Formats: sequence, structure tokens, C-alpha cells
Amino acid sequence: MQTLHVIKIGGNVINNELYLHQFLTNIPSISHHIILIHGGGKLVDELAVKLNIPQQKIDGRRITDLETLNLATMVYAGLINKNIVAVLQANHKLAIGLTGADANCIEATKRSNAKFDYGFVGDIIENGINTTFISSLLQQQIMPVFCAITQDGKGQLLNTNADTLAAEIAIAMCKTYKVQLHFCFEKKGVLSNANDENAVIESISANDYVTLKSQKVISNGMIPKLDNAFAAIKKGVEKVQIGDANNILQMIENKPHAATTLIA
Amino acid sequence: MQTLHVIKIGGNVINNELYLHQFLTNIPSISHHIILIHGGGKLVDELAVKLNIPQQKIDGRRITDLETLNLATMVYAGLINKNIVAVLQANHKLAIGLTGADANCIEATKRSNAKFDYGFVGDIIENGINTTFISSLLQQQIMPVFCAITQDGKGQLLNTNADTLAAEIAIAMCKTYKVQLHFCFEKKGVLSNANDENAVIESISANDYVTLKSQKVISNGMIPKLDNAFAAIKKGVEKVQIGDANNILQMIENKPHAATTLIA
Repeated sequence: MQTLHVIKIGGNVINNELYLHQFLTNIPSISHHIILIHGGGKLVDELAVKLNIPQQKIDGRRITDLETLNLATMVYAGLINKNIVAVLQANHKLAIGLTGADANCIEATKRSNAKFDYGFVGDIIENGINTTFISSLLQQQIMPVFCAITQDGKGQLLNTNADTLAAEIAIAMCKTYKVQLHFCFEKKGVLSNANDENAVIESISANDYVTLKSQKVISNGMIPKLDNAFAAIKKGVEKVQIGDANNILQMIENKPHAATTLIA
Repeated sequence: MQTLHVIKIGGNVINNELYLHQFLTNIPSISHHIILIHGGGKLVDELAVKLNIPQQKIDGRRITDLETLNLATMVYAGLINKNIVAVLQANHKLAIGLTGADANCIEATKRSNAKFDYGFVGDIIENGINTTFISSLLQQQIMPVFCAITQDGKGQLLNTNADTLAAEIAIAMCKTYKVQLHFCFEKKGVLSNANDENAVIESISANDYVTLKSQKVISNGMIPKLDNAFAAIKKGVEKVQIGDANNILQMIENKPHAATTLIA
């Protein structure tokens, strides 16, 4: 089995143009297959302010009304996704920008929750990932670049959490590849001390995770990311790493760096 | 050789949501290969006004400054393209939304003109169309849906005329398919009398075209479209038709309708 790296870059990488450019320039040197998943960045919020589209949140989670979904589709699937692909191409890395709608890559269902209506938010359905098409791209040496817009198979686009999307793609691809999942964010890894950027926890097992949560070492924001990560490990993903985007790229090439590795 | 229909729908089809939906719903019944190319519609202009981005034109042609290019990328490659794909998917037609950046499908070069600077406007380079990848999609029964955003191979996205893009794709695909090119717009065809919507000229030869231009029967707006059309015929495209989107779909299925056919 060939190795496949599923790499998710968050909003902080997207927002830092120079850093993103450096990251994209470093990708072509990696000989393994890669699927890139990107988050949104701050542009949707900025555009919403300019266009006077009020943004509602419940417990810090965005409500995706139709106008916000349209903004997200423009920014994620249009501006960010296509510029990433163009930069990769300039570095001689054949890439293709995709949403879940394209070639029916990712089918989701609108979240229904009796308590809150999160709007046009999609949860990926079982067997919802078109692994045949994604594999055919990889075999043609074309790197898929996904934003987190999905669809319900009935014509409706949906906004999906990019970490979840990355984890679900990683899990689905396990049947054909040895998959490693990498979450890249603004820190070098999961920190044992929030005030010390270098206090990276080298590895966290599922048991450690329970302890670290109870000790409040791992905070609110990290919990959904680590939940996704441990779910992926449970379902066949070989390795999950959390850390800095450029460090992670170097680690894929066996150059040692600090990052947090999650283990079963 | 298999038949391939390259269908371009203009802004007027995009702007009319109900009509667009009807058109997209009618596509899956066609058994031939199709490549769809779509224009922009009025949303970029509307957003430019809301966001206070001044739009400059020279002789009616838009100057694409960086902010306008970003708007075009958001609207064409994001909002319009992905919604078209989602609706096709809902009608059981596997489709994929593409720009020229994706899989290096269309390489262009920034237009340089000593007289005017049109900004980030791209002219497709010779052999700039990745026919191998486009053919591989068609063979997988996946319908490519292109917006008119291209790239220069150096990381820069560019705005390209959608009629020209359609003609160039049609020409490039001639080496593998029997290609027919269809320009769908707001009229039933080229009219012999601008005041009579039913005065459709059934066919126009290259010689007729010269005469009709000199008689001013064919007006300014139609000339670039027909220039593209005749260039395509000269370079191997079997047939070019101009007319109403839903009529054209029926004609592809051999159901007679009014439209203008261009002949050598």
C-alpha cells in the first residue's frame, strides 16, 4: 500500500499570505501522495461586515444562513481554493481544487438539531466520500485540494467543519492507502502550558487525552480537533499529527521537528 | 469518433434562476458527452457596487483590476460554478466544476497591449488546453463545467472571455472528438431584424457573415461571438449553433427548433 498524507491547514495559515506561500512552495518536494484540505480564514467575516450581513453564533459556532453560505462558497471554493491551486501549479505541482459537489466527492446531510438550527451546515453521510474518483486523481499525480463546502445530493451546498472533513477523508481513504492525517495550526503542537509556545507534548494516547481533559490542560478549542483525530485513529488512520504547517511538511520527509503525535 | 457538445451559457441564462434550473435539469437526458462553459452574470457588478469597488470600462470592456479579479474568482469559480454542479448532481449527472487553474486545464497569458491595460485579463496560449485530463473526465462520464477564470502558470489567476474559452476548448478537443459548439444567449438565434424576436437567420456562411456585417444586420455585440464561432469552424469544429439554451438542448437530441447554424 502506498502512503497518503491528508494535510489540513487552518484559517491562521490561510490568513498569513507569506507563510501560506512558503508552505505551498514546499509541498512539491514531497514524493508521497497528498490531499490538502483548507479552512476559511477571516475573509468571510470581513466580507460579511462590508456587505452588512449579520453573523450569528451560538456558543462560538457560526450560524450559516443562506447569505453566509453564499459568502463561504465564494471565498472558500472560489478565491482561496483557486489561488492555492494556481500557486501549486506555478511550483510544478499538478493540483485540482474541489468542493464536495465536484464529481460528487463528498455528500453530506443538513444538520438537524431540535435545540438549535445551525443553518446550512452539513454532516458527512456514511460512505459519502467518492474514494474512487479521489484515488483516480492521485494515480494521475494530481493533488486534490478541498475546501469544506459539501452538498446534500439534492442540489443544496452545505458548510462543513474542515477538521471533520479532513478526518472523514482520511478514514475513507484507508481502504486503499496507508493514511497519515496532519492538522496544521498556529502552534507547534498541543502545549502542556498555554503560555509556553515550546512546551509541545510529544505524544498523546487516547488514555492521556482523557486525563489531560480532566486536568484542563487541553482546552475547549482543541477538543473537537482531538476528538476528530482520535476517531480517525480508531477507524484505521495510521498516524495523526498536530503542529506547525512547515514543520509537518519536513517531518513527512523524515526531518525531525516538534509536533504532537496522537497514538491509539 | 464520439460526438462532444461544448455548450456555453451566457450571463442572461445565469441571471434567470428558473431558466437556468430548467436548462440544468434538461442536460442529463442527453446521451452525448458535454462540456459546459458559463459566463458571469450581473453578480460581480452588484457586489462591486456594494463593496465600493469602482468598475472601469474601455469601449464597454471591463478593466480587471486585482479587486475585480478577486470578485470574479469568488462569483464565477465559487458561487455560480459550484451551484451549477450541485444542481446537476441532484439530477444524477456527475459533474465537476473547474477553472483553468485546476489540473492545469487552461493556461493563458496576461494580455499586453501598448494602447490599453485591461488588467488581469488572460488570452489562452497555444496548446494551452489540457485535453488529456478533460478527456479522462469525459471517459469517466464526468461532465466538466468551466468558468472563465484561467491562470498563467506562474501563480496568477486571469479573467478570460467565456465565448473565447468555449471556442478554444472546442477547437482543442477536435483531435479526439467530433465537436459541436453551441452559444446559448437571450435570443433564439442571430436575427435578421433586431425588432422581431422570431426573425432567426437559419444559417450563416463565412461569406454571408461578411455581407451581413457590411449591411449592419449583425451588430457590435454579436461580432466577437461570431468571430469566435467562425474561427472554431475553420479549425475543425463540425458545427456551431447560436440560440436559446433549452432549444439548443432539444436540437442536440434531434428535435427541430429555431437557431442559427454557422457553416464554413
